[in-house]
Amino acid sequence: METKRIIVIGGSAAGPKAASRARRMDENAEISIYQKASDLSMASCGYPYYVGGFFDDRDQLLCSPAGVVRDSKFFWNAKKITTHVLTEVNNIDRKKKVINFTNLTTGEKGSASYDKLVIATGATARRPTVPGIDLKGITTLQSLSDADYLRKIKDEGVIKKAVVIGGGLIGIETVEALHLAGIDITLVELLPQLLTFLDKQMARLVERYVQSKVNVILRNGLAAFLGEDGVLKAVKLQDGTEIPCDLAVLAVGVTPNTKLAKDAGLEIGERGCIKVNSFMQTSDPDIYAVGDCIEIPNLITNKWVHAPFGDLANLQGRVVGENIIKGNVAKFPGTIQTGICKVFDYAAGSTGLSEQNAIKMGFDNIETVVNASLDKPGFMKGNLLITKLIADKVNRRILGAQVIGPGDVSKQVAIWAMAIKGKLTVDDMANADLPYAPPFSLAIDHSIATAHIMQNKLQGLYKGVSSEQLKERLKEDKPIFMIDVRNPGEFEEMRLGIGERLIPLGQLRNRLSELPEDKSIEIITWCKISLRGYEAALILQANGYKNVKVLEGGIAAWPWNREE
Amino acid sequence: METKRIIVIGGSAAGPKAASRARRMDENAEISIYQKASDLSMASCGYPYYVGGFFDDRDQLLCSPAGVVRDSKFFWNAKKITTHVLTEVNNIDRKKKVINFTNLTTGEKGSASYDKLVIATGATARRPTVPGIDLKGITTLQSLSDADYLRKIKDEGVIKKAVVIGGGLIGIETVEALHLAGIDITLVELLPQLLTFLDKQMARLVERYVQSKVNVILRNGLAAFLGEDGVLKAVKLQDGTEIPCDLAVLAVGVTPNTKLAKDAGLEIGERGCIKVNSFMQTSDPDIYAVGDCIEIPNLITNKWVHAPFGDLANLQGRVVGENIIKGNVAKFPGTIQTGICKVFDYAAGSTGLSEQNAIKMGFDNIETVVNASLDKPGFMKGNLLITKLIADKVNRRILGAQVIGPGDVSKQVAIWAMAIKGKLTVDDMANADLPYAPPFSLAIDHSIATAHIMQNKLQGLYKGVSSEQLKERLKEDKPIFMIDVRNPGEFEEMRLGIGERLIPLGQLRNRLSELPEDKSIEIITWCKISLRGYEAALILQANGYKNVKVLEGGIAAWPWNREE
Repeated sequence: METKRIIVIGGSAAGPKAASRARRMDENAEISIYQKASDLSMASCGYPYYVGGFFDDRDQLLCSPAGVVRDSKFFWNAKKITTHVLTEVNNIDRKKKVINFTNLTTGEKGSASYDKLVIATGATARRPTVPGIDLKGITTLQSLSDADYLRKIKDEGVIKKAVVIGGGLIGIETVEALHLAGIDITLVELLPQLLTFLDKQMARLVERYVQSKVNVILRNGLAAFLGEDGVLKAVKLQDGTEIPCDLAVLAVGVTPNTKLAKDAGLEIGERGCIKVNSFMQTSDPDIYAVGDCIEIPNLITNKWVHAPFGDLANLQGRVVGENIIKGNVAKFPGTIQTGICKVFDYAAGSTGLSEQNAIKMGFDNIETVVNASLDKPGFMKGNLLITKLIADKVNRRILGAQVIGPGDVSKQVAIWAMAIKGKLTVDDMANADLPYAPPFSLAIDHSIATAHIMQNKLQGLYKGVSSEQLKERLKEDKPIFMIDVRNPGEFEEMRLGIGERLIPLGQLRNRLSELPEDKSIEIITWCKISLRGYEAALILQANGYKNVKVLEGGIAAWPWNREE
Repeated sequence: METKRIIVIGGSAAGPKAASRARRMDENAEISIYQKASDLSMASCGYPYYVGGFFDDRDQLLCSPAGVVRDSKFFWNAKKITTHVLTEVNNIDRKKKVINFTNLTTGEKGSASYDKLVIATGATARRPTVPGIDLKGITTLQSLSDADYLRKIKDEGVIKKAVVIGGGLIGIETVEALHLAGIDITLVELLPQLLTFLDKQMARLVERYVQSKVNVILRNGLAAFLGEDGVLKAVKLQDGTEIPCDLAVLAVGVTPNTKLAKDAGLEIGERGCIKVNSFMQTSDPDIYAVGDCIEIPNLITNKWVHAPFGDLANLQGRVVGENIIKGNVAKFPGTIQTGICKVFDYAAGSTGLSEQNAIKMGFDNIETVVNASLDKPGFMKGNLLITKLIADKVNRRILGAQVIGPGDVSKQVAIWAMAIKGKLTVDDMANADLPYAPPFSLAIDHSIATAHIMQNKLQGLYKGVSSEQLKERLKEDKPIFMIDVRNPGEFEEMRLGIGERLIPLGQLRNRLSELPEDKSIEIITWCKISLRGYEAALILQANGYKNVKVLEGGIAAWPWNREE
C-alpha cells in the first residue's frame, strides 16, 4: 500500500484535531498542516480570559494537557506531523490534487500534493466598512495577536474608556474581560436585545445584570469611528450619539473563510459556507472540510446552520481524521446549537430552539414555561436559576431550553442538551433520575421542576403569562386584578409595584371576599418564583374564577425595575 | 361529587409531596397527614451539613423555599392539609377503610376513614444486635433528633474521638461532618471497599483520598461496643481490634418500614419492600405507597430494587398525589439508581450499572474504560475528573458511569444519567452537543472524550488494562515491559515506580531500538492520564508489537502509592 499524503489547511482547532486523529489511524501517512498564522492549536475560546487576567501565562493558550507548547517541534516529535506556519495556501488545484502556497516570511512559493485534503480555514471576525475603520485603537478579539494587543492594554492600564460593538457571545465575553481590566465600557448592540440565542425576556434579565456593571445601549448601530491623527477618539452611533473612547472592539460576528473552496469550485451551501455531507466530505470526494468554514444541519429543524463553536470543530476534526484514512466510516450528525457564555458572575446558556427561533422555523404548536428556583438548597448557599423551556404541544417533545443566572447554568444546559439528544418528552424529563444530594441540587432538580411546570401547563392546570405579556397587558384599558401572594415581610422589602395587592397565600382562602365579584375578571398571581403564585391560582380557579393566570418565574424573572 | 378523604401516613418527604400535589389537584378533598415524628417535611439529606456546620440555622432544614417553617400551621394555611404529628398509625383496617392511630403525646387513640390511603412510612436506620448497642454515645444519623444530638456534640467540642461504622453514602457524609467538627475519626467498613455503587478501582481512589483525612479500616466488621457505666468507651471489631472513642455512628443501611403494610396484608415484593405498580398503587387499589418503604424497577435490568433516595421519593409523591385524585393517570417508571456523594473536596457519583453489578446481573458482553482529564482547561483552574464508563459491546448502549474527583462530578453524572434515560449509544455520546466555553468545560467535554475512548476500544484500536489488572499482572512471573511516556520533568517529580522505563512520547519513534526484540512481549504504556499513553501504544502497534496495552486513566487513576 502506498503512503497516504494528507494535507490540512488551517492549524487552529479542527485542523490539528483532524491531523492528529489521522496520525492515530495511520502511523505511516504523510501528514502536513499549513497555517497562515504563526501559532498552532490555539485555545482561542480562552482569549477573553487571558485578556481579563484570569491567568497570566500566555503559553497556557498553546499548551497540551501535559503543559507542552504545541509548536511545530511538538507536532513533529509527538505526532510526526509536519507543520508549515506563516504559510498561506493560495489555491487548490483539484485536477492535479495539489495545493499552491506562499511562505509569508520569505515570500517563497511552493506546492504540495495530496491524496486527501482537509479544509479547516475557519472564519474571520467581521469588520464593517464604516468611516474610520482603520484608525488605531480598533480591534476584534479573534486572533492571538488580538488577545496580545488587548492584554497589553490591560497591563499598561492607560486606556480608560472602551466601546464594545456587538452584544453576542464574544461581545459579552469581551465586555467582562475589559471590565476586569478596569476599563469603563459601553456595550452597543444594533438589535433590541443582547445574546440572540435567548428569547427577549431572558435576554432582558441578562441585560439588566450587565447594565449593573457597564453601560448598555440597544437598538443603536455603529455609524462611524471618529479619530484624531489616525487614533480613535470616539464611536459615533446611528442616532448621532458620540461615545468618547480610546479603544473599540468589534464583535459583530464572523464570516466563514470560503474563498479557497469557492475558487476551487467546491459546492457552497445555502448559508454561504462550504457544503459537506455527514462524513464532512465536500463536493470533491478527496476534499473534506471542518470547523467554522462549513455549514451543518440543525438536528431539530433539519435546516443548515453556521455554528462556529470550538467544541463542534473538534468533533468534526475527529470524524474527518478517521474518514480520510479509513474511507467514510465516521459521521458527524449535526448540531442542536448548544452554547453558553459567562457573564460576570452569571452564565447564560441555551440548547435547541428558542421560542422566537421555533416560530421562525414554522413550529406552530409550541408551549413555553419560565421557571425560577435555586440550583441547590438555600442552606447549601444555592444560587438562582431561571429557565425557559420550549416544548411541542402535540408530541410533547422538548425543543429547547434557555438557562440564566448565578446558579449552575452549565449543568442545566447540559441536562437539556442531553434530553434533546435523546429526543425526550416533557414526561420523560418529569421523572428523570439525576444525581441528588444537597451540595449539588434540590431534591427535585431545577430541570425536573421545569418539566413539571410544563406538564401542568400542557395539562391545562394553569395558564401562564410571561413578564413581557403582563407588561404589555398593563397598557390595555381593561380591568385586571393582580395579587402578590408572598408574606408581608417579603412584600415590604421589595415588590413589582405595578398595581398589585398583597394577599399572602396562607390567608387567601379566608380573604376571597376581597376579590372582585366578577368571576370572569382577569387575575394575575405571583410570588418570588411563582410556586405559591401557582397554588394561589389553583385556589382561585377552584373558587370559580375563570380567567386566572400565573406570572411565570415570578418576581425573580421580572426584568424591569421593582419597588424597594 | 362527594368530598374525597385522603390520608397520608408519613410526613417526611414523599408523604407531604403526595398530599400537596393532591391538594393542587382538588381544592375540596379532605387531606390529612399522620406523622410519628414531631417535625414535617424535613430536609433529611441536609442533616450531615447541619451537623458539620455548613449552616447553623436548624430551621432551614424545615423551611419552604420562601423561608417559612413547614409546621402544622403552614400546612393548614398554605395547603389546607391537616397534619397530626407525634401520632403513630397502629394499623390499617382495609375492609372498613379506616386507620387506627395513637397520639403519642396524650396516649389517646383514634381512627379515621379514607377513600384513598398513601403509605409513606419510609425506612429506619439499621442497628445491629451486637453487645453494647444500648450504650450512651451510639447513634445513627437519620432523624432530626439524631442531627440535633450530633450538632450538639460539634458545638460542645468535648468529644474528640469517634467511629463511623459503614462506608456507604451516609457513612461518608457523616465522616465529613464529624471531621469538620474537629473530631478524630475512624471509618470502619465490613466490605473490601467504600461506596459499593462504585467499582473497586474507583472506590479505591476515593478511599485513598478519604484516608488522607481520617483513618479508614476495610474488611472488618463491628463486633461489639465496649463501655463503662453505660457510656461508650470503645468499638471492638471482628478481628479483635479495639478503637477507643466517645461516639459511634451507625451507618449500615436502612430497613424499609413495612409493618403496617404487612399487617394489613398488602403484597410485599421480592426485595422485602412494599410492592407497587407503576401508578405507585399497592395490591389494594385504594392504597398507594411511596418513598423509602417501596421497591421499584431498575430501568436497565428490569429487576426490583430498593432505592431510598430523596429525589425519587419526591417524584413518586407527585405521581401519587395526582393518581389518588384523578385515578391512575400518572406513572413513575423506575430508577437507574443515580446517586452522588460529597466527599470533602471530592465528589463520587454513579448512574446505571457498575461493572460488578452488570456482571452480577448477567450482562456478559460489556466493555469498560477509565478516563481521566480536567473538567475545564488548566488555565481556568480545571480540576481532575475520573470516569469509568460501562457499555454493551454488541448494541453499544451506555449501561453505566461512575465519576469521581475534585472536578465537576455532578454535571458529569447528570450527563450520563440523561444519556441512559435516552437509551443512547457510545456513538451518540461521541458527538453530543454540550455547552462549551472555557469557564465550564474542555472543548471536548470529559464525558464526550470518555465516549471517544470507548469507541476506540470497541473498534479494537487499543487494548486497555485497569490499574487493578496491572497490579495483579505484576505478581505473575512473565516478561512485561512498561513505559511511562511523559516528560523527564514529570517523571522525576512522581512516578508509579513499578519497574517502568521512561521514554517520552516525543522520543519514542527514535528509541524503538531500546524495546525488547520480541514483538509478542506484553508492553504497558501510560502517562499522566494515558492520552499520550494511547498514542504511544498506537506507535508500538504500528511497529509490529502485538501485545500492547494502555494503563487506563494513567497515573491519575492509580489508586496505590507512587514514588515521589
